[in-house]
Amino acid sequence: MTPVPALRTDGGEAPVRVLLDVDPGHDDALAILVAAGLPGVEIAAITTVGGNQTLEKVTRNALAVATVAGLEGTVVAAGCDRPLVTGAVITDPETHGASGLDGPVLPEPTLPLDPRHGVDVIVETVMAAEPGTLTLVPTGPLTNIATALRREPAIAERVAEVVLMGGGYTKGNVTPAAEFNIYTDPEAAHVVFSAPWRVTMVGLDLTHQALATPDVHERFRAMGTRAGGFVVDMLNFFGPAYRAKQGFDSPPVHDVCALVRAVAPDLVTVRPGHVDVELHGQHTRGMTVTDLQGRQGRDLDHLVATDLDVRRFWDLVTGAVARLP
Amino acid sequence: MTPVPALRTDGGEAPVRVLLDVDPGHDDALAILVAAGLPGVEIAAITTVGGNQTLEKVTRNALAVATVAGLEGTVVAAGCDRPLVTGAVITDPETHGASGLDGPVLPEPTLPLDPRHGVDVIVETVMAAEPGTLTLVPTGPLTNIATALRREPAIAERVAEVVLMGGGYTKGNVTPAAEFNIYTDPEAAHVVFSAPWRVTMVGLDLTHQALATPDVHERFRAMGTRAGGFVVDMLNFFGPAYRAKQGFDSPPVHDVCALVRAVAPDLVTVRPGHVDVELHGQHTRGMTVTDLQGRQGRDLDHLVATDLDVRRFWDLVTGAVARLP
Amino acid sequence: MTPVPALRTDGGEAPVRVLLDVDPGHDDALAILVAAGLPGVEIAAITTVGGNQTLEKVTRNALAVATVAGLEGTVVAAGCDRPLVTGAVITDPETHGASGLDGPVLPEPTLPLDPRHGVDVIVETVMAAEPGTLTLVPTGPLTNIATALRREPAIAERVAEVVLMGGGYTKGNVTPAAEFNIYTDPEAAHVVFSAPWRVTMVGLDLTHQALATPDVHERFRAMGTRAGGFVVDMLNFFGPAYRAKQGFDSPPVHDVCALVRAVAPDLVTVRPGHVDVELHGQHTRGMTVTDLQGRQGRDLDHLVATDLDVRRFWDLVTGAVARLP
Amino acid sequence: MTPVPALRTDGGEAPVRVLLDVDPGHDDALAILVAAGLPGVEIAAITTVGGNQTLEKVTRNALAVATVAGLEGTVVAAGCDRPLVTGAVITDPETHGASGLDGPVLPEPTLPLDPRHGVDVIVETVMAAEPGTLTLVPTGPLTNIATALRREPAIAERVAEVVLMGGGYTKGNVTPAAEFNIYTDPEAAHVVFSAPWRVTMVGLDLTHQALATPDVHERFRAMGTRAGGFVVDMLNFFGPAYRAKQGFDSPPVHDVCALVRAVAPDLVTVRPGHVDVELHGQHTRGMTVTDLQGRQGRDLDHLVATDLDVRRFWDLVTGAVARLP
Repeated sequence: MTPVPALRTDGGEAPVRVLLDVDPGHDDALAILVAAGLPGVEIAAITTVGGNQTLEKVTRNALAVATVAGLEGTVVAAGCDRPLVTGAVITDPETHGASGLDGPVLPEPTLPLDPRHGVDVIVETVMAAEPGTLTLVPTGPLTNIATALRREPAIAERVAEVVLMGGGYTKGNVTPAAEFNIYTDPEAAHVVFSAPWRVTMVGLDLTHQALATPDVHERFRAMGTRAGGFVVDMLNFFGPAYRAKQGFDSPPVHDVCALVRAVAPDLVTVRPGHVDVELHGQHTRGMTVTDLQGRQGRDLDHLVATDLDVRRFWDLVTGAVARLP
Repeated sequence: MTPVPALRTDGGEAPVRVLLDVDPGHDDALAILVAAGLPGVEIAAITTVGGNQTLEKVTRNALAVATVAGLEGTVVAAGCDRPLVTGAVITDPETHGASGLDGPVLPEPTLPLDPRHGVDVIVETVMAAEPGTLTLVPTGPLTNIATALRREPAIAERVAEVVLMGGGYTKGNVTPAAEFNIYTDPEAAHVVFSAPWRVTMVGLDLTHQALATPDVHERFRAMGTRAGGFVVDMLNFFGPAYRAKQGFDSPPVHDVCALVRAVAPDLVTVRPGHVDVELHGQHTRGMTVTDLQGRQGRDLDHLVATDLDVRRFWDLVTGAVARLP
Repeated sequence: MTPVPALRTDGGEAPVRVLLDVDPGHDDALAILVAAGLPGVEIAAITTVGGNQTLEKVTRNALAVATVAGLEGTVVAAGCDRPLVTGAVITDPETHGASGLDGPVLPEPTLPLDPRHGVDVIVETVMAAEPGTLTLVPTGPLTNIATALRREPAIAERVAEVVLMGGGYTKGNVTPAAEFNIYTDPEAAHVVFSAPWRVTMVGLDLTHQALATPDVHERFRAMGTRAGGFVVDMLNFFGPAYRAKQGFDSPPVHDVCALVRAVAPDLVTVRPGHVDVELHGQHTRGMTVTDLQGRQGRDLDHLVATDLDVRRFWDLVTGAVARLP
Repeated sequence: MTPVPALRTDGGEAPVRVLLDVDPGHDDALAILVAAGLPGVEIAAITTVGGNQTLEKVTRNALAVATVAGLEGTVVAAGCDRPLVTGAVITDPETHGASGLDGPVLPEPTLPLDPRHGVDVIVETVMAAEPGTLTLVPTGPLTNIATALRREPAIAERVAEVVLMGGGYTKGNVTPAAEFNIYTDPEAAHVVFSAPWRVTMVGLDLTHQALATPDVHERFRAMGTRAGGFVVDMLNFFGPAYRAKQGFDSPPVHDVCALVRAVAPDLVTVRPGHVDVELHGQHTRGMTVTDLQGRQGRDLDHLVATDLDVRRFWDLVTGAVARLP
């Protein structure tokens, strides 16, 4: 088995605690599996948000994936079902299927759904954690995170950081300018990027380097485990869907990149940057306008992911999945 | 004493139940007093929102006014402290003073602040009421109402209606196009006007008919009661402030008009209309673009207040205050 | 015959010189006839612009109307055929018919079309006039005027003033916020309102006071002249069209109001104001956002027409038409 | 001397005719020199536009550069002095100096300035040319070209093509999203990109490949000619200015790339694309939103320059300058 790279570079021994805010979705599902399989990572909670599919569907998917991952005891809670301001849910069945996670047969969940609203789970989990110890990893539209910030502004000082999948600094995928997670709820993204915390934007420029090539596919297949087979079933749907819609030979596993940056930062190079979310453009709504040079005196207050260590990334990802039953 | 006009025109005997979402503010304060003094009106709860002043100040003011009004036992809860998307609190100390309610000496509150978030109070109060029996009367920025709609979309079908003070169909007061409550949180207003419920917009075109003239002032003074004196002290600040800022001889008591429309609809004439909140204009952000003619096939789904029965309005208002201790 | 009101109030004897920039259109046509019939008015030139109908049609109409008005020797030139930036011609056949001037039988023009571009005619006419002696009266989209300003910025100091039909300060007619002439070319309007000259905006708030009631109709009919009959034929189409589209009992003769303000200013009361043209709104594009109070330190650099002396207006208009053959 | 690459690849012998619409500017100046020095290229006219500096300054610079280039007999005419809609001239003295062409000593022009307006020169030159034989090469803000299109829409079918320097598909230089020529007159750019002709966008992604490195600098110096010395003097200012403002080791000669694509298309690889100019964004105004994939059924109606044959580019450029006196 490929050894998992050391996650900590500071010599500490405490686990890395992450709260996953997700809309599974194939790449969200893989991110959950990877987080579950990494020995030094603790999942504080999983919250769901309407995005790749409706809230109802992605929540069911999250529970099923958590079941595959053996995450009994982990809090899973449903959050917001529609974008903050527009209220218009935009899903992506072409990429993720009618269920939001087409391909694998989903098991009956063995975890219960937490009765609390996902936003309350975010607020309570952050406020209960020691300051600076919990990282938020949103990989869907940012509705839950923005709503949590408005409900309890103090979470901004309390989290370690926010590492999100979304946006990009040279391209989009829904429009030439905007990426899906930001495009579907631009106002929520604006709230998140203008809060007084550090956001690491893991956008399309980075995630298009994380392609699940045939070689990677084979590594999952060779595991011979339930989790490995689940990933293979996902890629068997996700790969052709991505090829048909976006013209990629191999599909990028976007959301996994944000998780990996959160728990193994050495694998993802970042640069300081300022990000404005365009809310008003005719052709650019939902664009993450990224300044890497500090033009016009802007403060480079966030981090922008630029380069992936592809070999170590896949070693870590496959190593984590291989540890699952 | 002037007799209070009959509130019900349908022959029913149940009280009119209102939830007041306020940012007192002189006219909000008078609205609370009037609601408290009207025999057929029951205040289900009072929630506060950052607006005329900060959330902290308007909440303190609300508790003090509720104390003057003798509203012991009424739920008062603090809601959102900043606008939904911009996050930038805009207050109006020129009109309402540094405290948000300059003029009267505020008593120590005899009511406790409810520990729940104001948005939860709105959701729980609406969902606990019989369908169609509770009217929301927002007289500040619409942040709480919008957030409640997103947290529990079902409130839209459950309330009787929403009668709000805000906007206008021919004018603004912060800019030539936009009124304060909408201007300070346009995205929240968009959420409220696009939800599947009926909104009655009581805007500047209506409220500029409700002027607290010297004659009205004298009617409050002649009451010789604590509440009457409180109103006189408010008008002694609010009148000159309004004259200095907006050039009015006598100040309009905006928020009272929304309450009156909610509880005594005969006093306020309305027309069907469609309202779009402009979010993107350079000179028009926060404008309530109002279509009273159904151009381009628009559905006239809301009501727009156009004419006030001025004499009966002041009879009702002064009669209500006169009933307070 | 009703005597024509004195046009000059300053005791001078020089004629009032106007350049009419038009898109006839019924009310444009009446404005041309009135200008032709007023003894103290000299038409320096007539330029046409695509608007109520295509440039080709409105130019033909202008030549025909000039023929009815006996304007042999007057320069008539065709200008811009499409809006400055959008390039998308928006016409209004519902109001003005397929020809742009449905109703009367149009005579074969006895005037030639000037071979110059209308914009050049504007620039050359203004620059050839003594400073401060020529008034521009645009009653269509402002494409020609804006283009002339960009070609020769010096015209801004040389004209006496600009008195235009367009916009409004409380309403629109294409959308709830925007009037046709401004809506169809907002960028041109922005150029005109931001140039260093004084603009008098004669908008819908004023022109809706100039209704061609049955009594007015009868005065034209009773003239028994060719011109009077031409106006009657126009009103017989324009009245029902306006009723069907906009719900008016009697149609407003918008463009005539701008001409009258230009040549007989006493008949139209104005207030100082600042006008911003909204270019970017979703629901407000083309709105003339009008500040009559100087909020936020704005310079009240233009004039806004507010009240029409209706009786003297129709006396002047019918008197002028009655002088034509 | 480095041989000039063959310009024609179709076996034809007619010269390539270009109309240069410029705002010199160092890179515009070099583009003029290169066009003048290439044996198979004929300059139909040079028109100037306010941009890098005021119209007055760039026109003087154009005449001086034409003098250095020995372009006696070439029409040089001044066009628009300010952007189409905003009217606000934005210059770039940091990059090009107070004169717009700091560095070299400018000779007294030996060419006269054509008395016609630059826009008229464009229209007349295009309409006088055989269809499909004249290429427009705009390297400044697109004000002149847009105005010419509106004055004579027929030019769109008559030109061979438009090859412009401006925009970019992954970056800007004034803002993170917008390049200088488009940013300073976005509405003009919109007019140009939406006209029914084929535009080749030579934007920053391409021009940042055309760096005047020390080796290139030395090739100009070694010529020992007046023109070579002029270029060296330009680079001695432009290089440090670009380094100080934009952080480039060697300055990109943007405008030369558009000229080279127009006359030697093999040196610049292009891809089909659709370009929308963002007019309404808060952070993206002036962005050339470029779709290279035909999302949402868009027609890929223009060409976007992607790759420069750097070696052959500099061979052609230095070879051309070396032919000048």
